[in-house]
Amino acid sequence: MKALYFDGEKAVYREDALMPLCEEGQSLIKILLADICSTDREILKGYRPDFRGIMGHEFVGQVVESPEPELVGKIVVGELNQGCGKCIYCRTGREKHCLNRRVIGMSKDGCFAEYMALATHLIHVVPDGLSPEQAIFTEPLAAALEITKQVHIDPALNAAVIGDGRLAFMIAQVLALTGIDLTVIGKHPEKLRMFEPFAKTALLSDYREGDVYRPLTADECFEYAAEATGQESGIHLALNIVRKMGTIILKSTYAGSAHLDMSLIPVNEITIVGSRCGPFEPALKLLKERKVRFPDVELYDLKDFEKAFSSGAFKAGFRF
Amino acid sequence: MKALYFDGEKAVYREDALMPLCEEGQSLIKILLADICSTDREILKGYRPDFRGIMGHEFVGQVVESPEPELVGKIVVGELNQGCGKCIYCRTGREKHCLNRRVIGMSKDGCFAEYMALATHLIHVVPDGLSPEQAIFTEPLAAALEITKQVHIDPALNAAVIGDGRLAFMIAQVLALTGIDLTVIGKHPEKLRMFEPFAKTALLSDYREGDVYRPLTADECFEYAAEATGQESGIHLALNIVRKMGTIILKSTYAGSAHLDMSLIPVNEITIVGSRCGPFEPALKLLKERKVRFPDVELYDLKDFEKAFSSGAFKAGFRF
Repeated sequence: MKALYFDGEKAVYREDALMPLCEEGQSLIKILLADICSTDREILKGYRPDFRGIMGHEFVGQVVESPEPELVGKIVVGELNQGCGKCIYCRTGREKHCLNRRVIGMSKDGCFAEYMALATHLIHVVPDGLSPEQAIFTEPLAAALEITKQVHIDPALNAAVIGDGRLAFMIAQVLALTGIDLTVIGKHPEKLRMFEPFAKTALLSDYREGDVYRPLTADECFEYAAEATGQESGIHLALNIVRKMGTIILKSTYAGSAHLDMSLIPVNEITIVGSRCGPFEPALKLLKERKVRFPDVELYDLKDFEKAFSSGAFKAGFRF
Repeated sequence: MKALYFDGEKAVYREDALMPLCEEGQSLIKILLADICSTDREILKGYRPDFRGIMGHEFVGQVVESPEPELVGKIVVGELNQGCGKCIYCRTGREKHCLNRRVIGMSKDGCFAEYMALATHLIHVVPDGLSPEQAIFTEPLAAALEITKQVHIDPALNAAVIGDGRLAFMIAQVLALTGIDLTVIGKHPEKLRMFEPFAKTALLSDYREGDVYRPLTADECFEYAAEATGQESGIHLALNIVRKMGTIILKSTYAGSAHLDMSLIPVNEITIVGSRCGPFEPALKLLKERKVRFPDVELYDLKDFEKAFSSGAFKAGFRF
């Protein structure tokens, strides 16, 4: 079958990949759509140096074999992380943090291929009326919903999202659904226009000139600041715009590392919440009900992966 | 009157200090006991370089003049931070974070003196049956209670306190009252013995040898890790012992600054909560009911402040 491999340094397209074999409890999924997440780009930059295998973890597919017969033929999406089922993380609802977990596209073969095997309990059926082209956003939208799973967002307060890219667009739409007074801070006026239907927008230069942060009044600051730039500077901006006793949400996965002066955290009683993968079912529900919407994915043949990876589209992916 | 001043570099004892004048809304308090907090020691190291005035913020006193006549004659303790009453912090229950606040012993005259003026709404009456020698612990105990005000402590999980000093002793007693499985990690076997009635104890060397952290299994890790050492290494240990999706509580005020690699925070979905001053009323209640107890304060004359500051006692302070 066709598949896109990571060989430890770069992505390699192959047409002679072996069909995956299902282990006990797994289902075989024919991939219909798959798309590129910034994590895939981080892998090409060295985020997972030990990984060798088929890339990709965001997909919509059709179940072709399953230990649960009613799943066969269904259009589905799936979670990334398969835990051991035994450790304290698996036993306490934190399978995604299992130390022995296998992660599709990061430590086991992923979805940039015609077929993929996945643990059946990680599969979620796409509801009728939700197109594959929107369902493909389930995983990143679920990651944005992890914020409202972790943090009580008081809708009577105010919030900022730092960043104007894909991740920021997911987070901002989720936060906007709370009704909160929301400001998106970005570098690109043309990207910020996407946010205007549901948020105030501001240019980064309103808050920072070079390395110098503009001093803000308490009224100008935010109770919640969600960092979605993937840059160290985003964390520093968050610390500069968050109110005392406010909450900073860190969503970005960094290939490098960011350093922060921690002395302000106790003095200003800041809470910092690291946030990653999230719940699929509310994401599917919001997508089906059109409470959140995304631009259509720009789709490529798998062999044209280089074009897809360098695409400037909101989301690029593959059609099989 | 007698008073201990900070002159910008060092503590200076004077007997010719002027009696404080009460501004509108303030009460005049005759200080009975005052004790030394680690913040006072930090001030001598440069934590508040712009402050000049009478040091000290932990006291028990007797009201001698007040706009609220029923307070006169009462034995009282008092909060540190007087806000402007107008800003968003003062209007939303965060007076202690008011940008224009005045803090006794840090930006206005404090309690290492025979008399102090304090905003009347910051005064709390010491209940009958609670001795001044225990009531003096109200402010630091309130700071420990800020943890349970900020963070839901699930008593079915486990927690670690990092440190075996005064702050750790307050925090550990508060956490122990939840019934949680509690471990105190410290350097000093003789100090750790104080914690044994209500916590497991462990030596730091069980977790770290030099700069090398011992790898822990998920079971050995902790859902909550409260940092109470005041050292950068305490934060690093916290990151090494906290479970994924766990919570680190930062209580220490640093004169220097600590740097942390933030990249693990989103990946492991760690929450970091900065925590400072807390609620006085539950502290007074727990002290009165003897749910928490502390060793008696070692008391000195104010003129012997150098002995008091260098005392190795659990707490040292002044009797007036």
